[in-house]
Amino acid sequence: MEQSFDTKRVIIGPEGFKKVVDISVPKRVNLPTGYIESDKLAKISPGGSFFANDVEYYVFPCDTFDYVMHFLKRHTQIVYPKDGAYILMRLDIHPGKRVGEAGTGSGAFTLYLSMAVGPEGKVYTYEQREEFYKMAEKNIKNFSKFENVVMHNKSIVEGIEEKDLDAFFLDIREPEEAISAVREALKPAGHLGILVPTTNQVSEILTALQAHRFYVSEVVEIMIRQYKPVPERLRPDDRMIGHTAYMIFARKIL
Amino acid sequence: MEQSFDTKRVIIGPEGFKKVVDISVPKRVNLPTGYIESDKLAKISPGGSFFANDVEYYVFPCDTFDYVMHFLKRHTQIVYPKDGAYILMRLDIHPGKRVGEAGTGSGAFTLYLSMAVGPEGKVYTYEQREEFYKMAEKNIKNFSKFENVVMHNKSIVEGIEEKDLDAFFLDIREPEEAISAVREALKPAGHLGILVPTTNQVSEILTALQAHRFYVSEVVEIMIRQYKPVPERLRPDDRMIGHTAYMIFARKIL
Amino acid sequence: MEQSFDTKRVIIGPEGFKKVVDISVPKRVNLPTGYIESDKLAKISPGGSFFANDVEYYVFPCDTFDYVMHFLKRHTQIVYPKDGAYILMRLDIHPGKRVGEAGTGSGAFTLYLSMAVGPEGKVYTYEQREEFYKMAEKNIKNFSKFENVVMHNKSIVEGIEEKDLDAFFLDIREPEEAISAVREALKPAGHLGILVPTTNQVSEILTALQAHRFYVSEVVEIMIRQYKPVPERLRPDDRMIGHTAYMIFARKIL
Amino acid sequence: MEQSFDTKRVIIGPEGFKKVVDISVPKRVNLPTGYIESDKLAKISPGGSFFANDVEYYVFPCDTFDYVMHFLKRHTQIVYPKDGAYILMRLDIHPGKRVGEAGTGSGAFTLYLSMAVGPEGKVYTYEQREEFYKMAEKNIKNFSKFENVVMHNKSIVEGIEEKDLDAFFLDIREPEEAISAVREALKPAGHLGILVPTTNQVSEILTALQAHRFYVSEVVEIMIRQYKPVPERLRPDDRMIGHTAYMIFARKIL
Repeated sequence: MEQSFDTKRVIIGPEGFKKVVDISVPKRVNLPTGYIESDKLAKISPGGSFFANDVEYYVFPCDTFDYVMHFLKRHTQIVYPKDGAYILMRLDIHPGKRVGEAGTGSGAFTLYLSMAVGPEGKVYTYEQREEFYKMAEKNIKNFSKFENVVMHNKSIVEGIEEKDLDAFFLDIREPEEAISAVREALKPAGHLGILVPTTNQVSEILTALQAHRFYVSEVVEIMIRQYKPVPERLRPDDRMIGHTAYMIFARKIL
Repeated sequence: MEQSFDTKRVIIGPEGFKKVVDISVPKRVNLPTGYIESDKLAKISPGGSFFANDVEYYVFPCDTFDYVMHFLKRHTQIVYPKDGAYILMRLDIHPGKRVGEAGTGSGAFTLYLSMAVGPEGKVYTYEQREEFYKMAEKNIKNFSKFENVVMHNKSIVEGIEEKDLDAFFLDIREPEEAISAVREALKPAGHLGILVPTTNQVSEILTALQAHRFYVSEVVEIMIRQYKPVPERLRPDDRMIGHTAYMIFARKIL
Repeated sequence: MEQSFDTKRVIIGPEGFKKVVDISVPKRVNLPTGYIESDKLAKISPGGSFFANDVEYYVFPCDTFDYVMHFLKRHTQIVYPKDGAYILMRLDIHPGKRVGEAGTGSGAFTLYLSMAVGPEGKVYTYEQREEFYKMAEKNIKNFSKFENVVMHNKSIVEGIEEKDLDAFFLDIREPEEAISAVREALKPAGHLGILVPTTNQVSEILTALQAHRFYVSEVVEIMIRQYKPVPERLRPDDRMIGHTAYMIFARKIL
Repeated sequence: MEQSFDTKRVIIGPEGFKKVVDISVPKRVNLPTGYIESDKLAKISPGGSFFANDVEYYVFPCDTFDYVMHFLKRHTQIVYPKDGAYILMRLDIHPGKRVGEAGTGSGAFTLYLSMAVGPEGKVYTYEQREEFYKMAEKNIKNFSKFENVVMHNKSIVEGIEEKDLDAFFLDIREPEEAISAVREALKPAGHLGILVPTTNQVSEILTALQAHRFYVSEVVEIMIRQYKPVPERLRPDDRMIGHTAYMIFARKIL
């Protein structure tokens, strides 16, 4: 039987322990203070809890966030939630939108797109490396609630099959080489979002966007700072993410 | 005739000039280098441009982001996009979800919620101050694509009418007093997000969440850093937002 | 009579009001709620206060920090205290050290260097633009406690007169062109600090440092976040400095 | 023979390897790609290098920064350089100043103070826990260039022996209990700096400072962001320090 969204559970335990488990697969789940069998886990209502050697564990249904951060198989750097959330907003991704993406990578952001455009929308995603394509396919099938993702196992530099897209997201090695193909695929005033790790790439892309008549609306980075949730000793965590990527947002002008 | 989403345009000009205009309302629109009449603006295709005294202006359709930042009438601090985007992700807001909110404020975040849950979803929003309620009503009608927002002109401390909500978002003066009512309205494992400006409030809320059996998943702040989009002299802006709010995310446990 | 350190006072008033006044110059000092004559100000002990229309103002002696931020005449961007403090530490500037600097600019950082190396140390500073040189000379004389600054009105690209310096600090347009001259002036293992505003310059300097056999110990930026000092509503300021400069630290290797 | 400043060397190797070695102590120094005997190391000029299995290592004299970060023995959290540098500037610590400190901790910041006030200045430091006091004493003797540190093995809450100090720095458990004693020891307009990890403590201290007639000049945190020094792929490090402490600066008013 195909695994699905509703069979995933997040187990949360002491000291930041977090594990996503598929309860449709019989398995012994190891915990910091013992274990639980997946069939026993299946009987706990979402929001409920259980004890393993006197330590309480909470059981929640699995969100996109949990799935992406703790279950999905990766062979590449994924788009982090802090960045992904902002990209969805800046690209104006909403139910019914038609959106393109390259590369698919592990499919983490493809899932976010799929969840955001809903049953009336469509996500077209391109990945040229075959092993990545196959793993992403599994990751997406394994979670997607809506049947709205079309996958292509090719590079967009060879051309994008779709036209009049509302938005396109680029997370590939040399995005400046794909700007021209993306311009073809976007509708007028369509949104483009690009994610790159280095400042040198930002400079190259800005030059390419000027050359291909895109209006650059924002170059930005998002920093996330988490706090220890202790009311009487409130303070940020000792360590934080220092950098994931720079984001460039642009719109196609005529 | 009722104003609608499709009649709004963003005009983008030199040195960060940005204006949202309703082209269904006859009006002279002032620009840094001249003006344009709204009926002339209406004839420019989205993604197109025009000149005012030799300076080019771009014309785009109006996104939720543009509407919230540059058009919506405010009498309160709004939820900033950097925070709003992350809240949508952490509360797992997707097409079809049923979500509660208090207070409505200017309706900025209500619109984000409305756009995210789509035609199959529902947003229930509460605002006790009448003048805020009325202005939010206009702001929401003026933009909302989906007929999915239910507004209440009352405080949630008096009770929330809906049950089994997927998520609730609190942006009110004393959120710790509403935790109990929110718990009643949420389904098991439902998501709660709270926005507060001060560290003292974070401490108070953490204490209240423990008392009402919520699992705190994250206390966090999001910082956004924008760069000047000049390829050969790339650098962050001189000034940035130093603080908007702290966010607390929690889930109802049984 | 020459103005000196001991004749400067900082007046601190409501809502962040801060003014540095030279009490040796007869003058009416305007305040948000009135004024005070400088001779009356001279009679107030450091740490004392006075009232202007029922509002209290505090009077402090003038620190290097106050002088640099609120009195010194500028025609250029100065080195900010958050950066200056870190540079002093990373260049290991201490009493007795011999340090070079280019360009002098408004002399703000020259003063910090002068204060740090003390009576046994020496600061050699170069500024090629004559009007800057003259203004810096006044700014430095006006405050310096120690007679330890030697000023040159020339570019270091033409050669640095001193040898065996402990450290050198570069804050000029094209620092990569001065690396070779600085290498000549530094003692083996000597410290080099460079301040530049753009990422492109950081890349160019890293390449130049490799070419001239410097060991790069750190590329860094310092962010400062100030809080409103209200105990029951503690929170960061709404706005903060987004960027001043990147700093590169290196050591001369043989 | 007593160890001294001039006998310390920093060895810098591949992938961030950094080690401080005392060349006056005969010892085999282990390296990622082999080892070097300390007597052989002693013969390498500062700024020179050596090879261990074809990998080059650089040898530098040991700075205060290197000593504090890589040699000094700690049993407590030390004041980080990013914070320490800013504290020195805000407390206006310069050659000739008389400064107090509590607690001494591992002596890291005591050393910074000692290096900053120079031969004409004085540092008075208090530590009540005997084992900390003894370790700090060793750490300070082991490095200090100037004979300007006076150590006390007692709590300042019992009283501070010195009077008319230019500045005082507090890094103790409950600084709010020491404010009164510090006020006695400071000269009018004298500087006070306090370091605390939590927001709750900031609130408590602000209340105590108001009660003891201190003017609060700044509540602040310093964030440091390091970049990978690769010119063609410039980007910040993946991880950074998320939090060390909040700093509160105040001045004694009459």
